[in-house]
Amino acid sequence: MFVNSDDIEKMDQRYRIALINSITGFKSANLVGTVDANGITNLNIVNSCVHIGAHPPLIGFISRPHSVPRDTIENIEATGFYTINHINEAIFRQAHQTSARYPQDQSEFDATGLTELWENDFTAPYVQESLLRMGIKFRKKLPIDINNTDMIIGEIIQIHIPEDCLVENGSVDIEKAGSIAISGLDRYHRTQHIARLSYAKPDQKIKVIE
Amino acid sequence: MFVNSDDIEKMDQRYRIALINSITGFKSANLVGTVDANGITNLNIVNSCVHIGAHPPLIGFISRPHSVPRDTIENIEATGFYTINHINEAIFRQAHQTSARYPQDQSEFDATGLTELWENDFTAPYVQESLLRMGIKFRKKLPIDINNTDMIIGEIIQIHIPEDCLVENGSVDIEKAGSIAISGLDRYHRTQHIARLSYAKPDQKIKVIE
Repeated sequence: MFVNSDDIEKMDQRYRIALINSITGFKSANLVGTVDANGITNLNIVNSCVHIGAHPPLIGFISRPHSVPRDTIENIEATGFYTINHINEAIFRQAHQTSARYPQDQSEFDATGLTELWENDFTAPYVQESLLRMGIKFRKKLPIDINNTDMIIGEIIQIHIPEDCLVENGSVDIEKAGSIAISGLDRYHRTQHIARLSYAKPDQKIKVIE
Repeated sequence: MFVNSDDIEKMDQRYRIALINSITGFKSANLVGTVDANGITNLNIVNSCVHIGAHPPLIGFISRPHSVPRDTIENIEATGFYTINHINEAIFRQAHQTSARYPQDQSEFDATGLTELWENDFTAPYVQESLLRMGIKFRKKLPIDINNTDMIIGEIIQIHIPEDCLVENGSVDIEKAGSIAISGLDRYHRTQHIARLSYAKPDQKIKVIE
C-alpha cells in the first residue's frame, strides 16, 4: 500500500496516530520512575528511549504533549533525578497500565502493584521487578519547536545489570535479561537471537560472532 | 552487577561504548538512503530512529560524530530528502555491512548488493529488499551541545506498507512485515508476538486485544 502526505493529512486522528507510531520500527520498553517533593512516587512507561552517546553516557526520550504525564517531567525537573527500568515479560501488563491517567496524588506503583526499590541512596525509585535498571541525572530539556515536544536528556550514573548477562566486551545480552520490545502503541514482543555480527570493514566479509 | 559514574569513567573506551549502547533497550533497525549532487547514492544503517509526533508525522534519529558517515548528513542537507527502510532478516548482514567506511565515491548499494529503488518521483533511493519504506522530507537538525551530536528530524511524506500488515485501526504489524530489532552495536533479533493490549484507563483491567 502506498500513502502520501495528502493521505496522511486526511486520516482520522486516531488512525494516523496508530499508523505513524507503528512505522518507526521496534522500540525499547522502559519504565521511568520519579518522586515529587511530597514523596509521592510516579511511574510511566516510555517507548522512545534513545542512545545519544557513551562518554558521557547519555540517554534521551521524547516527551510529547499528551504521551508522558506532566508529573514525570515536573518531578525530573524538580528533583534532577529519575530511573529508567527495562520492562520484561513478567511485568508488561502492569507497565502498560502505568499509561492510564491516575490522579496526581496516586502513585502508579500502588495502582499497578509494581514495587518501589530504593537503593544506593538514589533520589528516585527503581522498579524492583526490573532486572536492568539505570539511575539517571537530568541534564537537559531540548525543545523541538516543530510540534512542541521535548527531548529529555540525562546522564547514566548508576547501572544494575544481571551478572550473567554481561558479555566480556562490555555489551549486555538484554534478550537474556528478559527485556522485551514494543511496536506501535500497544504491541509487545519477546525477541529471539538471530546473530551477533563482527565490526564491518570495507574489504572484509562480515562474520557471525555468536 | 552494580556500576556507578566512577566505574563508567574509568572503563576502557570500547568497553564503555559496548555497555552504554546496550542498555537503552531494543532498537529499531533501519537503512537511511540518500543521494549526492553527482548522483552517487549512499546507504547507512541507523538504529536510533525515534517517533516524535504523528501530526505532522515526524521521525528523528541521532547523528553521532563517528556513527553516521558525514555523507549521509551532507546529502540530507543538500537535497532535503532521504528514505528510511526497515531491515528484515533477509538483508541484515548487508545492512550491517553498510556501516563500513567506504570511499565517498563508492555507493553502499553497490558495495553490499542491496538494490536501489527509485519510485514515485522521490528524490532519494529506497531499498528494494525492504518491505516497509518511508520517504522523508528533512525538517531540522537539532544540535545536542552536551556531546556535539545532532538529532536529524524529518517529516514522513511517503509510506509503503505491505498490504497484509496494515491492521484496521491504522497500526502496522511490523513483526508480520519481517522487521527485526537491534540491541547494542551488533546484535540482531527477530521478534515473537506476546500480546497487543487495550488502551489503559485507571479503573479498568487491561485486556489482551490479540
